[in-house]
Amino acid sequence: MRIAKVRGTVVSTYKEPSLQGVKFLVVQFLDEAGQALQEYEVAADMVGAGVDEWVLISRGSQARHVRDCQERPVDAAVIAIIDTVNVENRSVYDKREHS
Amino acid sequence: MRIAKVRGTVVSTYKEPSLQGVKFLVVQFLDEAGQALQEYEVAADMVGAGVDEWVLISRGSQARHVRDCQERPVDAAVIAIIDTVNVENRSVYDKREHS
Amino acid sequence: MRIAKVRGTVVSTYKEPSLQGVKFLVVQFLDEAGQALQEYEVAADMVGAGVDEWVLISRGSQARHVRDCQERPVDAAVIAIIDTVNVENRSVYDKREHS
Amino acid sequence: MRIAKVRGTVVSTYKEPSLQGVKFLVVQFLDEAGQALQEYEVAADMVGAGVDEWVLISRGSQARHVRDCQERPVDAAVIAIIDTVNVENRSVYDKREHS
Amino acid sequence: MRIAKVRGTVVSTYKEPSLQGVKFLVVQFLDEAGQALQEYEVAADMVGAGVDEWVLISRGSQARHVRDCQERPVDAAVIAIIDTVNVENRSVYDKREHS
Repeated sequence: MRIAKVRGTVVSTYKEPSLQGVKFLVVQFLDEAGQALQEYEVAADMVGAGVDEWVLISRGSQARHVRDCQERPVDAAVIAIIDTVNVENRSVYDKREHS
Repeated sequence: MRIAKVRGTVVSTYKEPSLQGVKFLVVQFLDEAGQALQEYEVAADMVGAGVDEWVLISRGSQARHVRDCQERPVDAAVIAIIDTVNVENRSVYDKREHS
Repeated sequence: MRIAKVRGTVVSTYKEPSLQGVKFLVVQFLDEAGQALQEYEVAADMVGAGVDEWVLISRGSQARHVRDCQERPVDAAVIAIIDTVNVENRSVYDKREHS
Repeated sequence: MRIAKVRGTVVSTYKEPSLQGVKFLVVQFLDEAGQALQEYEVAADMVGAGVDEWVLISRGSQARHVRDCQERPVDAAVIAIIDTVNVENRSVYDKREHS
Repeated sequence: MRIAKVRGTVVSTYKEPSLQGVKFLVVQFLDEAGQALQEYEVAADMVGAGVDEWVLISRGSQARHVRDCQERPVDAAVIAIIDTVNVENRSVYDKREHS
């Protein structure tokens, strides 16, 4: 999985029928120190993440093991909203300090 | 998924039998600000996107969860025609301004 | 999928039993203008493409949806021999001009 | 698979229900000489690896063939804790020298 | 698939139970001219390749279609030991000249 930050949304009315009701978020990947990378993805969000929240993104066919996405053509999904990231016993991110 | 712009078509008569009737589009990936990237893909299109339209592309085995593609060897598909893209509450793209 | 040009062959006698009879082609990926990229792949060929022909390559688990490859450990396959490639209403490639 | 070193943890309370009880590790990929690469991944850990241990990471849909992960949306998992790495008959890593 | 050269081994005692008896090889990818690339992978080997042999590597979920790997979390596998590689009717590699 990858760590990412929610940056925006994509809206589409004309789409695969199975995608009705699926929310699409624009997410930007972060490195292990929390620095933004020049890498973006559009991910299906069934967890309910908000802009600026840190999330875990799962990609490829595994993305469909998110609730209600089994038969949907999504190749990236938000699987968790991150509380904390620790690297070498140092806190890189703590959600409480960002709310 | 990735944001892309439709740029052209690929036509093939001599192909896997299961691909009869599948339309192939040449798409160019865009970054989150709508700038063209030097990355192209050929995607199966069951949604009916036109040249210059912004679309969402799903890749890998998930591409086959598009209608009628279950048993087809496609690894990239158009899953939606994009209406709007918003990043940090700023409109990056609105289809109505491009029609 | 990706556009590629057939460049050569790989032969192997000592291999997974399920691969008996599968032909392996060395293909070089092309960009949307038909320029050769420094990216190669070895693809299973059930379509019968020849050296210098332009082909469509499908990669990942989708490659096995090519005829007779369901249970074979191939992660790249030729799915079509290309007739034409058009980008922004300009012909990039036409097979008849290359035969 | 890829060789990696465990560098930290990610904790999330608000996540896909199927992910309850799954431990997430931040791992950094290493090259064949054991040098750290600027590539990070978050992997599910069902093996019980500790910080600084060298591990084998499997990615993509194969990651779910780890115990208890069949229906979980994980796209990267720790599949083994490495004892030794040898390249060209030279020892690159031996766990006993690092405990 | 990718062409690679066997460079070494990884040994692990503490691993996913399903991986008992699986041999892990360190392989280095080669370009179409046989030049070594700075890209390494650890692949499961059910074919019995030796150090310095040229092999074909299949990656992603297709790797599990190698014998006895159906339910194993391997995302890369040796599927063939290469006899010859020809590019543009020129011999790039012939196993007999290397034994």
